[in-house]
Amino acid sequence: MNSSLRVSFVGAGNVAGHMAMAMLRKGLTISNIISLKRQNSVHLADMVGAHSIDHLDDITKNTDIIIVAVKDDSIADIAAKLKTELIVAHTSGTVELPILNSVGKNTGVFYPLQTFSGDTPISFREVPILIEGSNTQTTDILTELAEMISDKVLLHSSEERKRIHLSAVFACNFTNHLLAIAQDLLTCNECSFDLLHPLIKETMRKALAENPHDSQTGPARRGDTDVIDNHRFMLNRHPMYLEIYNLITQSIQETKYDG
Amino acid sequence: MNSSLRVSFVGAGNVAGHMAMAMLRKGLTISNIISLKRQNSVHLADMVGAHSIDHLDDITKNTDIIIVAVKDDSIADIAAKLKTELIVAHTSGTVELPILNSVGKNTGVFYPLQTFSGDTPISFREVPILIEGSNTQTTDILTELAEMISDKVLLHSSEERKRIHLSAVFACNFTNHLLAIAQDLLTCNECSFDLLHPLIKETMRKALAENPHDSQTGPARRGDTDVIDNHRFMLNRHPMYLEIYNLITQSIQETKYDG
Repeated sequence: MNSSLRVSFVGAGNVAGHMAMAMLRKGLTISNIISLKRQNSVHLADMVGAHSIDHLDDITKNTDIIIVAVKDDSIADIAAKLKTELIVAHTSGTVELPILNSVGKNTGVFYPLQTFSGDTPISFREVPILIEGSNTQTTDILTELAEMISDKVLLHSSEERKRIHLSAVFACNFTNHLLAIAQDLLTCNECSFDLLHPLIKETMRKALAENPHDSQTGPARRGDTDVIDNHRFMLNRHPMYLEIYNLITQSIQETKYDG
Repeated sequence: MNSSLRVSFVGAGNVAGHMAMAMLRKGLTISNIISLKRQNSVHLADMVGAHSIDHLDDITKNTDIIIVAVKDDSIADIAAKLKTELIVAHTSGTVELPILNSVGKNTGVFYPLQTFSGDTPISFREVPILIEGSNTQTTDILTELAEMISDKVLLHSSEERKRIHLSAVFACNFTNHLLAIAQDLLTCNECSFDLLHPLIKETMRKALAENPHDSQTGPARRGDTDVIDNHRFMLNRHPMYLEIYNLITQSIQETKYDG
């Protein structure tokens, strides 16, 4: 492991912040940080002992790797303005590697498969990092860097990464939306969402300990038509929730379960 | 608290088993157990020091409360065969109290809002128990019994209980199905579901610590049409998953978020 690697960040949001902190804890040098929101880059630079810079040209000074941790639709803008033979990697799950082609020969992807909140510390060792590089040396160095902060580093093409990201949308963004619907239905009935916490925790524990396909329960799995009809009746004032109810019920019923 | 209460169970499945064990730990006497599957009632009776009985008439011997912990569509059968002035309560989230009218005057509901697996121990103290009784005395005694094993005992009418159960279906059965879809999509790409574990854990942690409405992220929330179009393209071989993708994406987009 090469803790002499120096890393700079374009972007100072949640991804850059959590990643820079994890690298700092491993003894890496964080060189430069730039952000459209200057106060964000000043704040993060203060925390990790880096320079907060104002001009993108300065990002290449005294550094080995530049990580572009900005919103997906801002990566092309950065790529158009940056020209360097240093390694430049973006952190997106959905943007293809060639978006960085104009930057130089040594480009890559450094995608952490996790959702990051501002203040909540993340154990980065458990976060999978998906790596892609434009050449072997770049891939090797990005892998080495990733392995310093994570126990789960994997090589995947842009196409594979996009498919993994799609599954993550189902598992996380969509499950969260269903929890929000449950919260809304409870609130309509003047109940607190807390009431479901133990059930949600146990459902997730079971899905992770066994596997979600095998641990499916509920009226749709059992084919309990009386209960399903009554649920539909109760949802008559929530047409969108009723549509979701009908579609997921149908999908569960069309799933083949053993036994 | 009255630990001299004696409880008997019709049914010896996961709900009866976990409940009887929790009551036993609090010093209650478990008197009789009967199940359609005789070996289940013998096994559970052995574990909790109860009598395994073969005739439903014997369930009323040396007991104060009878808990009918059977599948929803079997409750009516039991009710038709049982006639007693003892307290008889069922454990269903969806079945209305009057289903027990033919049994006697003292009937109720004792519904644990949790999913129970065979071997996994549950901390019953955290499990909400929803109580309903046909008269004040029955309600009071069922509440007293519930408070011995749980810190979260609530009175709810049959109508309220059914609405809470509906929200639980969204939060648990449906979220689990989305996790199964994510698992399926990953397997199609020769990836392990383990890859998503840290992301799922963090999504759930965030939804429970903050609230799921406020913690929504993802392409649909951001209105990222390029990513959404690409996801749709990748789902062309999974028509049902595509329908679910489109509907939940639409639902997220129609949700009003602050800020």
